[in-house]
Amino acid sequence: MREAALHMHKEKQGKLTVHSKVPVRNADDLSLAYSPGVAEPCKEIHRDKSQVYDYTMKGNLVAVISDGSAVLGLGDIGPEAALPVMEGKAVLFKSFAGVDAFPLCLATNDVDEIVETVKRLEPTFGGVNLEDIAAPNCFLIEERLKEETDIPVFHDDQHGTAIVTLAGLINALKVVGKEMGSIRVVANGAGAAGVAIIKLLISMGVEDIVMCDSKGAIYDGRMIGMNGVKEELAKITNKRRVSGSLAEAIEGADVFIGVSVEGAVTKEMVQSMNRDPIIFAMANPVPEIMPEDAHEAGAAVVGTGRSDFPNQVNNVLAFPGIFRGALDVRATHITESMKIAAAHAIAGLITEDELSAEYVIPAPFDPRVVPHVAAEVARAAMEEGVASLHVDPEEIRKRTEQLVQDHNG
Amino acid sequence: MREAALHMHKEKQGKLTVHSKVPVRNADDLSLAYSPGVAEPCKEIHRDKSQVYDYTMKGNLVAVISDGSAVLGLGDIGPEAALPVMEGKAVLFKSFAGVDAFPLCLATNDVDEIVETVKRLEPTFGGVNLEDIAAPNCFLIEERLKEETDIPVFHDDQHGTAIVTLAGLINALKVVGKEMGSIRVVANGAGAAGVAIIKLLISMGVEDIVMCDSKGAIYDGRMIGMNGVKEELAKITNKRRVSGSLAEAIEGADVFIGVSVEGAVTKEMVQSMNRDPIIFAMANPVPEIMPEDAHEAGAAVVGTGRSDFPNQVNNVLAFPGIFRGALDVRATHITESMKIAAAHAIAGLITEDELSAEYVIPAPFDPRVVPHVAAEVARAAMEEGVASLHVDPEEIRKRTEQLVQDHNG
Repeated sequence: MREAALHMHKEKQGKLTVHSKVPVRNADDLSLAYSPGVAEPCKEIHRDKSQVYDYTMKGNLVAVISDGSAVLGLGDIGPEAALPVMEGKAVLFKSFAGVDAFPLCLATNDVDEIVETVKRLEPTFGGVNLEDIAAPNCFLIEERLKEETDIPVFHDDQHGTAIVTLAGLINALKVVGKEMGSIRVVANGAGAAGVAIIKLLISMGVEDIVMCDSKGAIYDGRMIGMNGVKEELAKITNKRRVSGSLAEAIEGADVFIGVSVEGAVTKEMVQSMNRDPIIFAMANPVPEIMPEDAHEAGAAVVGTGRSDFPNQVNNVLAFPGIFRGALDVRATHITESMKIAAAHAIAGLITEDELSAEYVIPAPFDPRVVPHVAAEVARAAMEEGVASLHVDPEEIRKRTEQLVQDHNG
Repeated sequence: MREAALHMHKEKQGKLTVHSKVPVRNADDLSLAYSPGVAEPCKEIHRDKSQVYDYTMKGNLVAVISDGSAVLGLGDIGPEAALPVMEGKAVLFKSFAGVDAFPLCLATNDVDEIVETVKRLEPTFGGVNLEDIAAPNCFLIEERLKEETDIPVFHDDQHGTAIVTLAGLINALKVVGKEMGSIRVVANGAGAAGVAIIKLLISMGVEDIVMCDSKGAIYDGRMIGMNGVKEELAKITNKRRVSGSLAEAIEGADVFIGVSVEGAVTKEMVQSMNRDPIIFAMANPVPEIMPEDAHEAGAAVVGTGRSDFPNQVNNVLAFPGIFRGALDVRATHITESMKIAAAHAIAGLITEDELSAEYVIPAPFDPRVVPHVAAEVARAAMEEGVASLHVDPEEIRKRTEQLVQDHNG
């Protein structure tokens, strides 16, 4: 793997290239694509700024922004070393959804500097995907950019994971015959993904959630290891004021959600949960508990981040379709209801007949996923009034199917 | 033209797209291009930052940066309206030299903010082409970026025009049998291009230069209409301390260089020049004097910015090959000697036999130009010690010929 990956990246000098959609072979071509013809679309946009979406690549273009501070399992490796991941993300945007995405790795970790840099880049881009930025900066950056720009901003490490986890949970609950409103959820890991999952579950009506970090359950009034984000979490979760270790918190829970570290969950802990426990153990590359161990200890449904086990929580199920849908209706934001629509779209692709403990999440290369997510996200954006264009969701589905087919054909 | 240009831009939703060089059709592809395989090049770059040039697109990637403050003949139309021009520039980089270029139009006109934004983007890009930024900001921005970054920075409106003008002048002087060291030059227009032309001519040994603006000749001690750049110009030009109007300054001159406005030069003014005057009248779209009028008044050689007259001063003769050469030897700067090498390369393509008053500058689509410029710029960079790699210039010429051929085939 190591040699193959290095060879592939080096042979091609990276994974992306910028392509011209127009020929420039003679003076006539030149006079249309450049001077003097290019002055015409410039004048149109100068007259009406919204026409930048018609005459330039902006409407299909997403910036993949990182400071390289929390890259994969590698940590704070800096902007240059993060670039292969951001190029890879752009490759996925293109391959899965026909979205032009461009990596920009920034030489700063400062929240204000990242925010102001992205704001200055706003004229060129139709959307912003934040990637591999460490918590808690990622929360602050996303929050401010959502307020201070007019284009959709999405931190995939938070919301991509949250949406796919929610999709898996929707289906897992059907498998075990439980309801969102009456389950107890315990989550481990208060980083970007963990916090987003909790917030999305609260939006879905889950009432009993306990979030743990390396110091155990987070509760209102805990004195050690707190920060602004955890203070906020303590106020909106853990109404029973559970304290103590993860092992204590997990007793009687229906669902465990791990975005933490290898081996954080033992068989005994699974055995202490309520009947038919659901486990999403998403630590990478080694989960909090291996699926076979979880099942032996009584787990009913197990999901991980890995492609070699059933029910892979893979962000590629979410972000390509979400941006496809958001761009197609020129949404100004990606809202909670658009995220929930995406989760329902992903979950809904598995029919009642197909549904099983081993199949609560569709496969990443299921060609139905992105078109369906794009259509439902666009529909939600229009219903919520954050879309600048009205487009029939069915048309978006068909167009996206065609894009996916063109790519794979 | 207007309808065709609008149609072409709208039909394709802009002129650029981001392409993936690697397939992502199944889990194996995904594991090489993205997680977990992508961690390997990340680790290599983290260990040795210079490897970002091997494993990512950086080494072939130029940012086309503008604030939209001085776009074509349109003026300060803002970053959105400037985007079609910057996309067009990127198209030319790709079509003429195989360079991946990406447009970034910034929502600020502030020198400090533009400088710090570009510096934060430096990890991603192998070079920076500044474009359509108004004087005097463009001078300050380029100067600071040259000092504060480790990648080549080039303001094409200044140096591209200056290099091609110099190439034309080298050949025009052969036609009329005069020498750089003994000519009198009068230039009109103290904007980006005018200033850069003057400085490059001084580097070439031209000793008698008078620069004019709308207030007439610029001289040391002039009180009206001065700014920092003109003060500097006043110190390095006009040793005879000529004052008065352009009409007065141009008397007896051998060369007129116009980067000013339509009709700034009359037949009488040309008649007042020294024998066999050389005229570069580059105001767009209508030159300072029309070629037929200039010739009637006695001009020996006339160049303009237009493709419908002989001797077109077109930047596309310079910037693609300059960046091709600079990137191929990983130059840290684009120096005066690299610019002069580019001018000699362009001029040298026209043989003594071919040379005539109507043919002192090669045609923009002459396929020999970019490979030759790239090779000679690379050679100059290596000789001056600003190149990080050593590559045989002949190899660069051949590789670039192949790129150009692939594009046109």
